Amino acid sequence: MRREITGFSNPTVKYLRSLRDKKHRKREGKFLAEGLRLLTDARESGRLPEVLVMATKRDAHPLLDDLERAVVAAGGEVIETTPDILSKITGKDNPQSVAGVYAEFDTSLAALDRTAAPIWLVAQALRDPGNLGTMLRTGDAVGAGGLILIDDCADPFSVEAVRASMGAVFTQAIGQASWEEFLPWLRGGPGQLVAASLRDAVPYRSAPYAAPCFILVGNESRGLPQEYETACDLRVTMPMRGRADSLNAAVAAAVLAYEVLASLEG
Amino acid sequence: MRREITGFSNPTVKYLRSLRDKKHRKREGKFLAEGLRLLTDARESGRLPEVLVMATKRDAHPLLDDLERAVVAAGGEVIETTPDILSKITGKDNPQSVAGVYAEFDTSLAALDRTAAPIWLVAQALRDPGNLGTMLRTGDAVGAGGLILIDDCADPFSVEAVRASMGAVFTQAIGQASWEEFLPWLRGGPGQLVAASLRDAVPYRSAPYAAPCFILVGNESRGLPQEYETACDLRVTMPMRGRADSLNAAVAAAVLAYEVLASLEG
Repeated sequence: MRREITGFSNPTVKYLRSLRDKKHRKREGKFLAEGLRLLTDARESGRLPEVLVMATKRDAHPLLDDLERAVVAAGGEVIETTPDILSKITGKDNPQSVAGVYAEFDTSLAALDRTAAPIWLVAQALRDPGNLGTMLRTGDAVGAGGLILIDDCADPFSVEAVRASMGAVFTQAIGQASWEEFLPWLRGGPGQLVAASLRDAVPYRSAPYAAPCFILVGNESRGLPQEYETACDLRVTMPMRGRADSLNAAVAAAVLAYEVLASLEG
Repeated sequence: MRREITGFSNPTVKYLRSLRDKKHRKREGKFLAEGLRLLTDARESGRLPEVLVMATKRDAHPLLDDLERAVVAAGGEVIETTPDILSKITGKDNPQSVAGVYAEFDTSLAALDRTAAPIWLVAQALRDPGNLGTMLRTGDAVGAGGLILIDDCADPFSVEAVRASMGAVFTQAIGQASWEEFLPWLRGGPGQLVAASLRDAVPYRSAPYAAPCFILVGNESRGLPQEYETACDLRVTMPMRGRADSLNAAVAAAVLAYEVLASLEG
């Protein structure tokens, strides 16, 4: 049932490698995830890879055997290849011994059920795929419903974002929209939009958070546009005791999200 | 007073470029920082670059003029070069128009004054320079004294760490030590060692934090060795509502640090 590939120039290798490029991901509607733990998380979240790629040199593992059987049963493809080729596919020097190709998910706002969770993370023009993946991971930890990406963000299906999400890309819902689409959608139902801000803001430790609470963070360099801040229901300040006037975007989202979680459950 | 360099093969360009490699940084005892904002932060923290590198195509700025005068007055060197060469030096596609070479700081534990701040961050075997820089940035924000790097961590003077620190590399103290050096140093004075843990732990929102509080986070993949956890004065749990059992290391440090800050000041 396994197909073996040993040549770097094999068309399948080229196809798999091409999924590291956003353009090809979008055209194919597929993305790559790597590592047995991630792939097992995906499976437990109901997602099987369409193609399972395994290194010829790998440790045997019952979870990998289970995964392979499930992929074959679902009509998927199983490929064995060298660690070098797998490294080339995932772009990582010390690659995991297994990777999978998944179909991208529906990221329209219409597919989101805002009542499914008390917390949602929202990022505007977030450019760093590591920050994006970290936000997904944090969302999973605080029991958020998902991450909504506003305007021109990094691709949540990039290898780097998927890696940093530590599997949360499979458990968190993901939305993608422009601000002009997002705001009417948000106002079409319950939802409190909250941002960290220096203007007209209340201390973040005693702010009146309400579920579903949408925590909005801005671009790494420029922060949020002023009109986006103004559109928020609640602006909160966080202590800044040093020289800097801002936190890393993923850090700010996490500190706020844990505060909102404690507040809603307190 | 300015020296102009236009050739990629110029020895000074090679020297500056070599500072992107840890081996060369350690041999020279120097590191690179880029961007007018960072260099201005450094200057306001009392650090001037020994070499100031400016792109020929740059916007005029009074802060840059001030910086240049200060470097010259201190006997430093000022170099003008093309944006392409500056890009090659810093390894960034869209380089800042200015960079500086700084002397590395003393990172021995003996140089740290633990009574100078109520919070200290401690990272063990942290491998990602972005996480390391983000921890420095968070430390600055919560008014921490600095970041202590235990065992084999990423280099705080790498271009990536300096960049992610957003200038905090100049305002936060940095210590580097093995665990065998760190623990006796810690026990030689006041200090509460705290880590997030799943074992024998109390909820992080109601834990009895005490200053100076040393917040310890572990390696990105493996977390903390069990004996390090055992050596802590306080182990705290953070809510994990999803599938994952851990947060990104820099995120965990930040959520804990903000909690400790609120607790100590409450």
